[in-house]
Amino acid sequence: MQKTAVVASGRDILNIMKMKEPSRRNLLSLGAGLAALTGCSTSKQETPTLLGTPPSKYGARSPHETAVRLVPAESKTPSTGASRTPLQDTYGIITPSSLHFERHHAGVPDIDPAKHELLLHGLVEQPLVYTLADLKRFPAVSQIHFVECSGNGRSEYTGNLGPDPQQSHGLASCSEWTGVPVKLLLAEAKLKPAAKWVIAEGGDACRLTRSIPVAKLLDDAMIVYGQNGGPIRPEQGYPMRLLLPGWEGNTNIKWLRRLNVADAPAMTTHETAFYTDLMPDGKARQFSFELEAKSVITRPAGGQKMPGGAGTYEITGLAWSGRGKIQRVEISVDDGKSWKDADLQLAGFTKAFTRFRMPWSWDGSPAALQSRATDETGYLQPTEDEMLAARGRNYGYHNNQIKVWYVRADGSVSHVAQGA
Amino acid sequence: MQKTAVVASGRDILNIMKMKEPSRRNLLSLGAGLAALTGCSTSKQETPTLLGTPPSKYGARSPHETAVRLVPAESKTPSTGASRTPLQDTYGIITPSSLHFERHHAGVPDIDPAKHELLLHGLVEQPLVYTLADLKRFPAVSQIHFVECSGNGRSEYTGNLGPDPQQSHGLASCSEWTGVPVKLLLAEAKLKPAAKWVIAEGGDACRLTRSIPVAKLLDDAMIVYGQNGGPIRPEQGYPMRLLLPGWEGNTNIKWLRRLNVADAPAMTTHETAFYTDLMPDGKARQFSFELEAKSVITRPAGGQKMPGGAGTYEITGLAWSGRGKIQRVEISVDDGKSWKDADLQLAGFTKAFTRFRMPWSWDGSPAALQSRATDETGYLQPTEDEMLAARGRNYGYHNNQIKVWYVRADGSVSHVAQGA
Repeated sequence: MQKTAVVASGRDILNIMKMKEPSRRNLLSLGAGLAALTGCSTSKQETPTLLGTPPSKYGARSPHETAVRLVPAESKTPSTGASRTPLQDTYGIITPSSLHFERHHAGVPDIDPAKHELLLHGLVEQPLVYTLADLKRFPAVSQIHFVECSGNGRSEYTGNLGPDPQQSHGLASCSEWTGVPVKLLLAEAKLKPAAKWVIAEGGDACRLTRSIPVAKLLDDAMIVYGQNGGPIRPEQGYPMRLLLPGWEGNTNIKWLRRLNVADAPAMTTHETAFYTDLMPDGKARQFSFELEAKSVITRPAGGQKMPGGAGTYEITGLAWSGRGKIQRVEISVDDGKSWKDADLQLAGFTKAFTRFRMPWSWDGSPAALQSRATDETGYLQPTEDEMLAARGRNYGYHNNQIKVWYVRADGSVSHVAQGA
Repeated sequence: MQKTAVVASGRDILNIMKMKEPSRRNLLSLGAGLAALTGCSTSKQETPTLLGTPPSKYGARSPHETAVRLVPAESKTPSTGASRTPLQDTYGIITPSSLHFERHHAGVPDIDPAKHELLLHGLVEQPLVYTLADLKRFPAVSQIHFVECSGNGRSEYTGNLGPDPQQSHGLASCSEWTGVPVKLLLAEAKLKPAAKWVIAEGGDACRLTRSIPVAKLLDDAMIVYGQNGGPIRPEQGYPMRLLLPGWEGNTNIKWLRRLNVADAPAMTTHETAFYTDLMPDGKARQFSFELEAKSVITRPAGGQKMPGGAGTYEITGLAWSGRGKIQRVEISVDDGKSWKDADLQLAGFTKAFTRFRMPWSWDGSPAALQSRATDETGYLQPTEDEMLAARGRNYGYHNNQIKVWYVRADGSVSHVAQGA
């Protein structure tokens, strides 16, 4: 029995560190590259001898952690704009609520939930008004889903490549959402036979409004009031938002105040002047709601530096599809010449982030890293060339092309190849 | 086409509200009780006309939301103590990181991750030291698991019933954790044949230390550095903690600084004087690591008031087991005489919270609500009588007996029956 276990000190550790003789032989089970991990750290362990902070009412992250959303440096219209999630600094599939991307058209309203109401009217037998307390009496569902702005990756399409995952793919986030299936409310109000669309209106100053086919609302649409175990955040629509799993973010109306059942779409600003896809023939695709399969490697990725030389590292990233579950993610370390299956984690959710991982033995020479996702419908994420051939150069929204990161011999990782 | 959809105003809503004639007939599809939901709200919708807050770097919850951890009112030794999660104010299965329960024995140390090291030594061929950067090179896993203090529900056992879910069951929380399987580190260090236990030591001022069988570390144990998508919180062991899925919280050593491989347990304070179970014969169960199936209804629950009279409500709560997945949760509204299966949500994870829900048509008369969980091993959560028969009155830790909430005719909900 090792009684010394309970009388540790910093000195013990330093003595043992000196004793240590790293042996390559012992490490082969994890791949030769991991030998690099045995390098003895030179930093000295901090060993507190004073009592720490007592339990507290509401915790915060460590002051040593500083990842933030990327906001525009300067804007004459700050209330319309976006902030981007630092995907490269997230773990697993959940996006911390404080780092969920934002896209507002009139800023975040300050809403007192006790005064907020949702009106359901139009082509229904029974117009209804719901308070938040009303909604909480309905049978609820908790689901994990991503939300993505249809403009995510738009600059990638025009050749203005994002230098890191936050700038290239940061208009996507994933949360555990809790709320009421919209179909329960529609059943209560009872749709009239002519009902085909629902005009959903937000409670922000611009009353952002989108037209949603009734079929989606009768499928998996929710009115959510919970996010990652807490109440939905103000930036995400507090006290309630529409959640349309897998559909472009703009349709997931925040601060939801009205559902007006109609026989036709309302042709609002945000589905005519914006959020349409201009095709090569000059015509625009409209109501292109569904987001297609996409992925991005978050580490190693642009803006980062390999933390050592040749050796074993983990390649990890996120994949998602608006059409269902992610079935497969492949990784190439030779610029798309050959592909290997990555390990998928927390992959059981439909229309949610999936975390993918693969160990990589980096030989220290330049490498081009790519990932490509396949969803359960069999749809494979396209290359840039495939995307251009199908949709032309006028396009911009709904860009899901494969992203490339270049690892250079000096360990730096960039969005452009050496010398480019 | 309803063009009026885009020109809403508060007046429109009020006019429509007046037009409304709630009809019981339309609502029967959701159960007769839901007729109550059609009561027209008298509050006036707030409709902002000014631009709101721009996107921000790091978000916070709405100032209207005030749920907090319960901390001791006063303490002469504040650094040793606990704070409890307000389970009744959480949604889904994720506990917001800021509300994860705490139990510290020497407070929360302030650790600079750049100076923190993990030493792995003792009965191994190759002693090793890992920095956080080293650990992040290993193949990681992301998993959803609960952590529960073995003392959760201790006062319930002695008859001092918790008046609400936070006080009765709030020493349990559930997070998405990301980190390295311990077995990868042990494979690198290579265990000697005599290795049977690992003495795990924390980096707090008291060096909290527990002895863990090697078998658990070779199974599903992790060293985690990620929590709910962000870095692990200081209160949970930043920058790294041991996570032993399903095992009593105290063994999940926080601020982990040392794993000393040994041939026998170290018999530390926290596995001899504390965290043992005194049985009726005067002997103590020791190393009773595994937490058994448990559940609690979080709404309606003690401390709450039914938000209306007779009608349809949702009964919801959380269930978990240290032995695997939750297979079934049953709810009784007649004090255990009859039981009905609840709907299980996000139930696919082993050793994690499962959210359960069931619609309930309350007739307005007093009711006693209970839930009982069955895990995938077939183990059924016991009644108080069954627990007392098996373990006697000296017991206290590992209390997983069924909890009862009493709904009174006036809509108040309490932990004691009417008049008790």
